Amino acid sequence: MAMSPEDENPVKAFGWAARDSSGHLSPFKFSRRHEIVGVVTEVGTKVTKFKVGDKVGVGCMVGSCHSCANCKEDLENYCPEMILTYGVKYYDGTTTYGGYSDIMISDEHFVIKIPNNLPLDGGAPLLCAGITVYSPLKYYGLDKVGMHLGVVGLGGLGHMAVKFAKAMGLKVTVISTSPNKKKEAMDHLGADAFLVSRNTEEMELAVGTMDGIIDTVSAVHALLPLIGLLKTNGKLVMVGAPEKPLELLAFPLLMGRKMVGGSGIGGMKETQEMIDFAAKHNIVADIEVIPMDYVNTAMERLLKADVKYRFVIDIANSLKPF
Amino acid sequence: MAMSPEDENPVKAFGWAARDSSGHLSPFKFSRRHEIVGVVTEVGTKVTKFKVGDKVGVGCMVGSCHSCANCKEDLENYCPEMILTYGVKYYDGTTTYGGYSDIMISDEHFVIKIPNNLPLDGGAPLLCAGITVYSPLKYYGLDKVGMHLGVVGLGGLGHMAVKFAKAMGLKVTVISTSPNKKKEAMDHLGADAFLVSRNTEEMELAVGTMDGIIDTVSAVHALLPLIGLLKTNGKLVMVGAPEKPLELLAFPLLMGRKMVGGSGIGGMKETQEMIDFAAKHNIVADIEVIPMDYVNTAMERLLKADVKYRFVIDIANSLKPF
Repeated sequence: MAMSPEDENPVKAFGWAARDSSGHLSPFKFSRRHEIVGVVTEVGTKVTKFKVGDKVGVGCMVGSCHSCANCKEDLENYCPEMILTYGVKYYDGTTTYGGYSDIMISDEHFVIKIPNNLPLDGGAPLLCAGITVYSPLKYYGLDKVGMHLGVVGLGGLGHMAVKFAKAMGLKVTVISTSPNKKKEAMDHLGADAFLVSRNTEEMELAVGTMDGIIDTVSAVHALLPLIGLLKTNGKLVMVGAPEKPLELLAFPLLMGRKMVGGSGIGGMKETQEMIDFAAKHNIVADIEVIPMDYVNTAMERLLKADVKYRFVIDIANSLKPF
Repeated sequence: MAMSPEDENPVKAFGWAARDSSGHLSPFKFSRRHEIVGVVTEVGTKVTKFKVGDKVGVGCMVGSCHSCANCKEDLENYCPEMILTYGVKYYDGTTTYGGYSDIMISDEHFVIKIPNNLPLDGGAPLLCAGITVYSPLKYYGLDKVGMHLGVVGLGGLGHMAVKFAKAMGLKVTVISTSPNKKKEAMDHLGADAFLVSRNTEEMELAVGTMDGIIDTVSAVHALLPLIGLLKTNGKLVMVGAPEKPLELLAFPLLMGRKMVGGSGIGGMKETQEMIDFAAKHNIVADIEVIPMDYVNTAMERLLKADVKYRFVIDIANSLKPF
C-alpha cells in the first residue's frame, strides 16, 4: 500500500499561514515541501546539482509536466500543468505551502543556485520580480545597448526593470502617476528620465521615442498614451494583470507595426541566467527586512503600497516555534 | 517665378471621381500624377528602374520623406510624411487622385515592376491586399513551413492571406462568422480547416493550436477567443482597423507570452519581394473585372460585401473621354 503523502514527508515544518479568508497569518505546523531562499541542509541520493551548504532559492513554481512543448523549450512557466509554490496541489496530493517556514523540500529542477556574492535577502525577490521583468526584456529583444525603454509603475517589478535595463545598457524612462517618485527613480535607481503619465505635455514630447515599454501596472489603465510613446516596431509588454479588460485601439498598432504583448515569470534555465546576470552586475531588490511576527502589519502596508520595494521575512532569525 | 503645379504637369488626365461627400463617381478631367497597374508610356531622364513598355504598378503610397528612420529601413509605409495615392497633398501641392484614370505619373521609387507572367488584373490588388498580409507573415515570423496560421475574415485581405500562407507551406485555418464560406475556403482557396467563430465547441477544440493569426476584420469583435486559439508565444496580428477600441484582457497574454500586434501595408522593397513571390507561386487575387461606368454599382455592392474578392476596373478598355 502506498504511503500517504504525510507519511512520505515525515519532516514536519513550522511556519506562519492564513487559515481562513480573513488573510490574517498565525503560527502553523504542517507537512511541507517548499520555500524561497536559504541553504541546502540535506540532498536526496539522486540530486546532482546541489550539495549541503549551497545557497539556493525557489521561485514561484515547484513543478511542471516535463514533457509538453513548453517544458521542452525550458518554458516550464507556461506549462499547462505548472505547479505554483503556494496554495495548489502538488504531484502527491499535498498542498504547496509557500515559504513562510523553517524548512522546505524541493525537486532540484526547480531550485536555483544563488551565487556567493549575491546576498540572500536582496536576492530573494529576484526569483519572482526579477525574472518577471528580465524574461520579457530578453524575449522581446529589448536588451540591446542604447535602446530606450519605458517602465510604467515604480513598484516591486518596476524598480527591478529599471535596474536590469540600466545594467543592459539601455536608456530608461520611468512613467508614473506619482510626480513624487521622480527623485527616487532618477537619483536612487538611476533612471535617465521620468514622465508623469497625467501630464499630457510631458507625454506629448516623448511620443515615438521608445523601443519598448515594460508595463507593471495591475490596475485598469489607458494603453493608448503608452502605445503613442513607442517608435515604429515598438513593443508594449504587460507584466501586470488588470482584472478587467483594457481598451485597445487597433489603428495605432497598424500605423507603426506596434504590438502589445504579455510575459509571466520565466523558465528555470532563464531564471538561473537572470540570477547569474544579477550577481555579475550587483543587482538586488531594494528591500525591507522584517521579522516573522510583523507579517500581518506588512500585509496591511502592502495594500497601501507602503514599501520600497519588497518585504523580506527573516525566517531564520525570527521564526519561533510555539 | 516657380511654375504652378498645374503648369509643371501639363499632361491632362481624364478619369472618374467623387466630387462631393455623396460618394457618387462621375467623369472628371484633372492634372494628375498617380495610378495602379499599367504599362510604362514615358520615362523621365533620370529614371533607371524602368523603360517604356514595362508592366508596372503603384500601390497605396506615392511619396515619403526618404530621410527618417523608417524610410532608411525600407519602411516608407510607416514614414510620418508618407503620401497616400489618393486624396492627400503631394509634394508640389497638387492632390493625389488615385487610379481611376487613363494615365498617371509617379516617382520611380514608388513604382513596382510586375513580372511578365503575372496578369495585370489579378495582380493589381496584390499591391494593397497582398502586401498587407504578406508583410506581417514575414515580420512576425509566421512564414515557416509547418506552422499553423489562423485567418480571421474571408474577404479581400483574408483570401490573400490564405493563398500566401499556403504557398509558404503553412497549415491554414479560416475563422469566419459565416458557415457558408467553408466550401469556398477549403475547396477553392485550399485552406486546411474552417472554424465558425460563433461555434464555441469548434473553437474550444482548436484552443492552443495556432502559431499565429492574421485578423482582417475591421468591425469591432472579440479578441479573447482568438487569443485562446494561440499556442505559447503565439501572435495575433491585426490588419483591419475597427474604429472603436476592442477589449483586451491582459492575463491570457501573460499566461502564454502571447501578443497582439498590428501591421499596415509594407515598404516598397518588400512590396517588390511580395510581387516576385506571387509571380513565382502563381498567386493572384480573385477578382471581378468591371468597366468604368459600373463603378457606382460596384461601390454599393462593396458595402454589402458582395464581391469575390476585389473589383478591378478595366480602365484601358472602358474609360471613354467625354
